[in-house]
Amino acid sequence: MRPQDLIEKKRDGAELSREEIAFLIGGYTRDEIPDYQMAAWLMAVFLKGMTDAETQALVEEMLCSGETLSFPEISQRKVDKHSTGGVGDKTSLVVAPVAAACGLAVPMISGRALAHTGGTLDKLDSIPGFRTNLRLDEFRAILQRCGLALMGQSREIAPADRKLYALRDLTATVPSRPLICASIMSKKLAEGIDGLVLDVKVGNGAFMREIGEARLLAGMLHDVCRRMGKRSAVVLTNMNRPLGKWVGNAVEVVEAIETLQGNLEGDFAELCLELAAHSLIVGGVIGDLDSARDEARKAIVSGAALERFRAVIVAQGGNERVLDDVRQLRWARFAKVITAEREGFVTGMATDEIGRIVMDWGGGRRRLEDPIDYSVGLRIHAKPGDRVLVGQPLVTARFNDKSRVQEMEARVRGAYQIGETAPSPEPLIREVLSDV
Amino acid sequence: MRPQDLIEKKRDGAELSREEIAFLIGGYTRDEIPDYQMAAWLMAVFLKGMTDAETQALVEEMLCSGETLSFPEISQRKVDKHSTGGVGDKTSLVVAPVAAACGLAVPMISGRALAHTGGTLDKLDSIPGFRTNLRLDEFRAILQRCGLALMGQSREIAPADRKLYALRDLTATVPSRPLICASIMSKKLAEGIDGLVLDVKVGNGAFMREIGEARLLAGMLHDVCRRMGKRSAVVLTNMNRPLGKWVGNAVEVVEAIETLQGNLEGDFAELCLELAAHSLIVGGVIGDLDSARDEARKAIVSGAALERFRAVIVAQGGNERVLDDVRQLRWARFAKVITAEREGFVTGMATDEIGRIVMDWGGGRRRLEDPIDYSVGLRIHAKPGDRVLVGQPLVTARFNDKSRVQEMEARVRGAYQIGETAPSPEPLIREVLSDV
Repeated sequence: MRPQDLIEKKRDGAELSREEIAFLIGGYTRDEIPDYQMAAWLMAVFLKGMTDAETQALVEEMLCSGETLSFPEISQRKVDKHSTGGVGDKTSLVVAPVAAACGLAVPMISGRALAHTGGTLDKLDSIPGFRTNLRLDEFRAILQRCGLALMGQSREIAPADRKLYALRDLTATVPSRPLICASIMSKKLAEGIDGLVLDVKVGNGAFMREIGEARLLAGMLHDVCRRMGKRSAVVLTNMNRPLGKWVGNAVEVVEAIETLQGNLEGDFAELCLELAAHSLIVGGVIGDLDSARDEARKAIVSGAALERFRAVIVAQGGNERVLDDVRQLRWARFAKVITAEREGFVTGMATDEIGRIVMDWGGGRRRLEDPIDYSVGLRIHAKPGDRVLVGQPLVTARFNDKSRVQEMEARVRGAYQIGETAPSPEPLIREVLSDV
Repeated sequence: MRPQDLIEKKRDGAELSREEIAFLIGGYTRDEIPDYQMAAWLMAVFLKGMTDAETQALVEEMLCSGETLSFPEISQRKVDKHSTGGVGDKTSLVVAPVAAACGLAVPMISGRALAHTGGTLDKLDSIPGFRTNLRLDEFRAILQRCGLALMGQSREIAPADRKLYALRDLTATVPSRPLICASIMSKKLAEGIDGLVLDVKVGNGAFMREIGEARLLAGMLHDVCRRMGKRSAVVLTNMNRPLGKWVGNAVEVVEAIETLQGNLEGDFAELCLELAAHSLIVGGVIGDLDSARDEARKAIVSGAALERFRAVIVAQGGNERVLDDVRQLRWARFAKVITAEREGFVTGMATDEIGRIVMDWGGGRRRLEDPIDYSVGLRIHAKPGDRVLVGQPLVTARFNDKSRVQEMEARVRGAYQIGETAPSPEPLIREVLSDV
């Protein structure tokens, strides 16, 4: 077999066999197939798609490119939560401690920022001292001690995905259903979980912009979970606006801390409670959604979830004082309030552009080796449906690179559509696919 | 501008601007854009195509990635011949000396084997001592002295194409009309020519398998020549069978030498005379095709063309004794006659597979850095339309790797279709697009 022949086969729309997919994924993992051949194959997959059988083969070959964890010593049900990626999405920082406080074990392996979306790992890295590059034995010990452990993908876990994830980001091959599905599931199935809650974002800040596409991805993820014997809930949520108040890295940690401290106003807290509730159901802790939401809320109000978060920060070497004094996190030197230039309703936001502005101002990467400026971010004051007056704040930008203020201000304003009439409201939770 | 955004734009089928194409080609040439991003872009171009304006921009940006030659000191008209690539196509080795003998100057910059097709440069490299990596001043001096000079693409000539050519071969992005057109024209326009004869191969051994596709490519090439002020003739020729008797490297040099020695039987010699005749017309040496064919034939029969070939071999450091004793070329150690197992007419040949067999047996490359075994090759005894009896030779294979005889024999037999009735004959010259 030669890689170029398999690239050609996919280019021409044919179905690859299990053996052919194994050859490509295995060869790429062992550095026998170069990035450029894989990049061409990824673009062919992007444009020609994959059958269910190919997708399942891709999931399994990526999974078995590395180790699969299991935690027989931990009596709690192991449940993780994963999002397909959005702007301002810091739910993992809240859902994991809440689920742990409610009696689940959450072995969470997270990723970095991808395209215009943020990454949980980059957010965690903004906590001084916090180590996300754990060894597997450390991960195991912390999970047992705290009920949650948060790490990046180690060399042992789905190494094929590690390489592919980085490559897709730089080759415009991210928003492909089978590639997204295989990337998520190969990592999640390696975590030794009993169940999984998936948050499929849909809208102009997500990789799936249309509900139809998102539904297809949700179905694909649900099918793979079922075929692999994992209970799951797949929640389709609105990403036609940033989630919560902040977009960035350290600033999103602040917002998560405030939520764990009991500030349960707004869409961000609502989604955290919803996803935590589904985790409790998938994990068999509670049978109905209303009780599960109550249980999640109690875990926050009682301070139990915050204590879980404190425990995991300490266990992973982070500075726990960030929980008591957010000034311990890095803050950008400059702030600029960007205001509305006309009166009206915010009728829409280019959510992906908001993510790109943060990235381009230092909060994300152009190349994998680029450093991130954890301190920059945008505070979103106005969202679709809000009424604004001339001079009223749309966004407060926090930044270090003063030379780009004018350009960025123009881009922020350009990301807002302001019109005469209020848009019809959009629900946060669009649909749920659940086993239960 | 970021490469991934331009990849995305092409992926989604949009037209790139001149500036965007310049950014990609310039950045790639300067090693600022990595192979993997270019590979994804190439696959997107392959599957989404390019407009005429994009193709023209690509030609010009690839051309101006390097130097353009000009030869004011040479009084003859400068005309080159180029083929889109086939199996057994060694016409350059004959057409260039013939055209030079008839009063043209032929500044020929050739390429290496690509996918299943052979490369003039690899064939020339099989002549002991022959140097194809000339400096531009050497190229110029040899062209003036001999009327022809044969070299590989130097660093100075269309460096963007050098890199892209190698990348396309390994990423299944070769048979794309705009990419083929830009690759050919960026090199040929750099040669400082007045006119160009293009041999567009069509059939199962060519990159264009269907006459419709080939016609579109021919028209595209003709248009670019016209826009760039070059006279041209584009000849569509049959590649549903290997051209001539031999497929390989040194063995094709032998066949070219025999032709220059006056063996004018068969399709190979016929095509050489036809292409040489078009060169004479494009170069303004002669006005009508019949007289031009006669003139080309005379250049061979008189020995003038062979003497030009001898002169260029000497000038480029090669062993001229190969012309008098072909045993001076490398010959494979083993020979195996592969015979027909049933009686009938050869109704078709998998011409690309014939090319791949030679390549896989050592005559081509899997990776750019692979060495070539110049000595291996296949002597084609039977072609479509021929009647064969059981035990009659189809092919004589010359090879060094004995371990693969059985596999290769099966592949050779598998490349022949033998049936009851004679296929309808196919003309060698399918169509001609000419300025004159």
